[in-house]
Amino acid sequence: MVIGYAAIDQICDYYSNISNVPVKAQVQPGYLIDQLPREAPENGQQFDEIQRDFGKLILPGITHWQSPSFFAYFPSNSTFECMIADLLSSSVSNPGFNWICSPACTELEQVVVEWAARMLGLSKEFWGSSGIGGGVIMGSASDSAFTAAIAAREKALRRLSLEAGVQAGDNGQIEIPDEIRQEYGQKLVVYGSTQTHSLGAKAALMLGLPFRAIPVSIEDQYSLRGKDVREAIEKDKKAGLVPFLVYATVGTTSTGAVDRIAEIGQVLKDYPTTFLHVDAAWAGVAYALPQYRESLRLKEVNEYADSFCTNFHKWGLTTFDCSIFCVKNRKDLTQALDVTPPFLRSKEADAGTVIDYRNWQPSLGRRFRSIKLWFVLRSFGISGFQKHLERGIEHRQRLTEIVERSNKFEIVTTPNLSLLVFRLHLKDPKDNREVDDDKLNLLNQKLHQKLDSRYDIFLTQTVLHSKERNIFCIRLAMGGVNTTFEDVKRAWEIVELEGDTVLQEVDLV
Amino acid sequence: MVIGYAAIDQICDYYSNISNVPVKAQVQPGYLIDQLPREAPENGQQFDEIQRDFGKLILPGITHWQSPSFFAYFPSNSTFECMIADLLSSSVSNPGFNWICSPACTELEQVVVEWAARMLGLSKEFWGSSGIGGGVIMGSASDSAFTAAIAAREKALRRLSLEAGVQAGDNGQIEIPDEIRQEYGQKLVVYGSTQTHSLGAKAALMLGLPFRAIPVSIEDQYSLRGKDVREAIEKDKKAGLVPFLVYATVGTTSTGAVDRIAEIGQVLKDYPTTFLHVDAAWAGVAYALPQYRESLRLKEVNEYADSFCTNFHKWGLTTFDCSIFCVKNRKDLTQALDVTPPFLRSKEADAGTVIDYRNWQPSLGRRFRSIKLWFVLRSFGISGFQKHLERGIEHRQRLTEIVERSNKFEIVTTPNLSLLVFRLHLKDPKDNREVDDDKLNLLNQKLHQKLDSRYDIFLTQTVLHSKERNIFCIRLAMGGVNTTFEDVKRAWEIVELEGDTVLQEVDLV
Repeated sequence: MVIGYAAIDQICDYYSNISNVPVKAQVQPGYLIDQLPREAPENGQQFDEIQRDFGKLILPGITHWQSPSFFAYFPSNSTFECMIADLLSSSVSNPGFNWICSPACTELEQVVVEWAARMLGLSKEFWGSSGIGGGVIMGSASDSAFTAAIAAREKALRRLSLEAGVQAGDNGQIEIPDEIRQEYGQKLVVYGSTQTHSLGAKAALMLGLPFRAIPVSIEDQYSLRGKDVREAIEKDKKAGLVPFLVYATVGTTSTGAVDRIAEIGQVLKDYPTTFLHVDAAWAGVAYALPQYRESLRLKEVNEYADSFCTNFHKWGLTTFDCSIFCVKNRKDLTQALDVTPPFLRSKEADAGTVIDYRNWQPSLGRRFRSIKLWFVLRSFGISGFQKHLERGIEHRQRLTEIVERSNKFEIVTTPNLSLLVFRLHLKDPKDNREVDDDKLNLLNQKLHQKLDSRYDIFLTQTVLHSKERNIFCIRLAMGGVNTTFEDVKRAWEIVELEGDTVLQEVDLV
Repeated sequence: MVIGYAAIDQICDYYSNISNVPVKAQVQPGYLIDQLPREAPENGQQFDEIQRDFGKLILPGITHWQSPSFFAYFPSNSTFECMIADLLSSSVSNPGFNWICSPACTELEQVVVEWAARMLGLSKEFWGSSGIGGGVIMGSASDSAFTAAIAAREKALRRLSLEAGVQAGDNGQIEIPDEIRQEYGQKLVVYGSTQTHSLGAKAALMLGLPFRAIPVSIEDQYSLRGKDVREAIEKDKKAGLVPFLVYATVGTTSTGAVDRIAEIGQVLKDYPTTFLHVDAAWAGVAYALPQYRESLRLKEVNEYADSFCTNFHKWGLTTFDCSIFCVKNRKDLTQALDVTPPFLRSKEADAGTVIDYRNWQPSLGRRFRSIKLWFVLRSFGISGFQKHLERGIEHRQRLTEIVERSNKFEIVTTPNLSLLVFRLHLKDPKDNREVDDDKLNLLNQKLHQKLDSRYDIFLTQTVLHSKERNIFCIRLAMGGVNTTFEDVKRAWEIVELEGDTVLQEVDLV
């Protein structure tokens, strides 16, 4: 009990001091490896010594994602409520693969995933209580996207089997014959845009299938258009290939772009072997704010998506990991993932009265993650959750005003929610003409290097590929649970300072 | 701080009382769904109320894997040290995909996975410090097996590319041409035995490739033999298929059987497109005991396996999840899984001085799991870890003596480590001849139903498929961290009692 209290104290100390420590770990590669013995100790050690080493050895090598000065990637909020939830989950540790493994794990997940789906305004088809669709908590948006890919592939192959005259069995299901797999298995193609998160290319890579990164344009603010999807699909079809999966994104990683879901969905109606997965890993939680539903195309998601994912472990106050993955037809998952040997059978599953989540995901074992989301949604309430999101958006809006007044920086794309993407920008003093992108890209790479060599701030870079040109720029992702607008302003002052240094050092024109 | 202390108290209370509560949740499907509101609350609720609901609503629906009377599946030990480790991990929550995300996460994982590999006696080739091989912590043995499958597929296709005359690029790597994927992608076959865990069939299912469950025999104690692997491979080769992956098991789920690794490895030398993954999910931690290394074929694993997995979250005192996955060549993973968009680049990774674990696994984000194993190995020490394992084995040995003296029960296979597999057995009173297996199977199904309808004990069933016949039996898996031999004896008394009831009820002969 004493060591438990001590850990709680340690965490409280950590958070009370988090504004004062540099956000980025000030260590060199190998810092920890060099400090630890090569082998586990022969005899047990005192726990207080081990616990002290967490502060002495581990914390210096932590990049503080909970720091108010963390603006890299996307926030990965952790809250004290959630840590306690996770602790309670550890205390009843179990692999949760079947209902009977711990009924509470399965049922709480069913309930809170539906809470989330309702809060976000997802249509009833995605709710577990529909009895047809439903949701599950995954470890990451990659897991969700990959699971969607497997479901999509099997669904496409079943469709092709049906077209080839294969009849459904007594259970109403179509077994995919070997010949269909042989014929079409390697002809399937995944689509996304050049702005799709690498999870798309990785899912395709894991399935051994090609991923088409369809170009987008600056004119469309980096969002994927239906006509470009059609063009890519048609090209593949002419080559004898079969489209089976499109990843559309609501809130891309680079700029927060929102793909044209309705356009894409309409196009896909012409290709019945296709499945539409909407990856809203970061932005999806913002559906909790009704005023953003239209710009984030919620109605289109509800109409056209087969599956949907958003990560509550990013902006959504829930300690990593908690990726919500919802499907309109749960059989898309179970028909692709159910393998039941005798030792995993249970009378409840045999009776069909319960969900065994192992058949909704790639892995067998799974953590009791729903308790985290339960604690978060109850302790914040929908209104508290919304206030948290609004705060991040307000920070971005206020920062936008500041950047717009700057004569050195420009905002690269219309900002979405709490993400601002900017770059140093200047005109040639001789003729007041725009400096070309290659030069600006070099300039901004230098700026990023400057920022990246600092430990008191953490921002990440991106390169925006488009039909028109490639732009190197810097992202400032707000929405951290401990971040105030003062922190945002301080970050921007650093960016301006480093920007000035770069401009002084470089003779661009 | 107060809510943190309260959670610690709550956990201490839970453990001090765990012997007194039934191991199995006494709830019916829907018990929790029916008690919870359909939607998240609009306003935040008091935390103490939420925390109380954990005890009131969740605990009654928990199957207590930490109960001393849990003998189902395999143990999934949790220790207080580990819970604290997990809590500290939550406190610095981050998705850990890159070194720079938190250097401590990556480096501690490198260190403790090597501690584990050394403690288990895995050869240097599997150690990260070799610079060539190394290990990573996965969420489950299914994740490890599936990752091995992707690595194996890409390796086989590279090999086939090489054979087709494709040259390595400037980086020394072979890019697999589309034509090779088209030609061979759907001809690849995965092998295991009928005793391989369902993770094998599931990995194959996810890749859309066939899984051959090679029959084993009672004579070989359910272990997979080299000659049977060769026969299966030859049959497929004749049909134009390509063997690429064999799952061998050290300690099968049903009976703890150990496949003939050396025989299989020797056979696979004749098939250079093959990859050998050894799944020792449960039994692998027992390599920490030198006296069991020979019977568990450690030397053979070291000689022949390309990859190896064992779960410290089963018998290994580490709160779920902590699956150790080691490979002899880390490039098998990175060449199959590396996708690096601009926004994931970092100067340290570009310099090649650090590991980015996202390229060793399917997902991008990952939990800081290594801290759990670090706390366990330090607080128990190797000697404490060994004592814990020995205790489980000793319980099994003592129970074996009891069962051997029974005239109603028989031990079905030579027991391995802490697992005992038994069944009711009887002779026909008329002629003293053995009752046939069909009847015995029915009898034991009835026994299992009796046991399964009780809440004070939890055992799981299995069906042993073999060349000779199918046997329904019951598993009693010891090794729970809170289980004493008194608990084992009490469990056996219940089994005997229910066995008597079944024998009285049934007129078998």
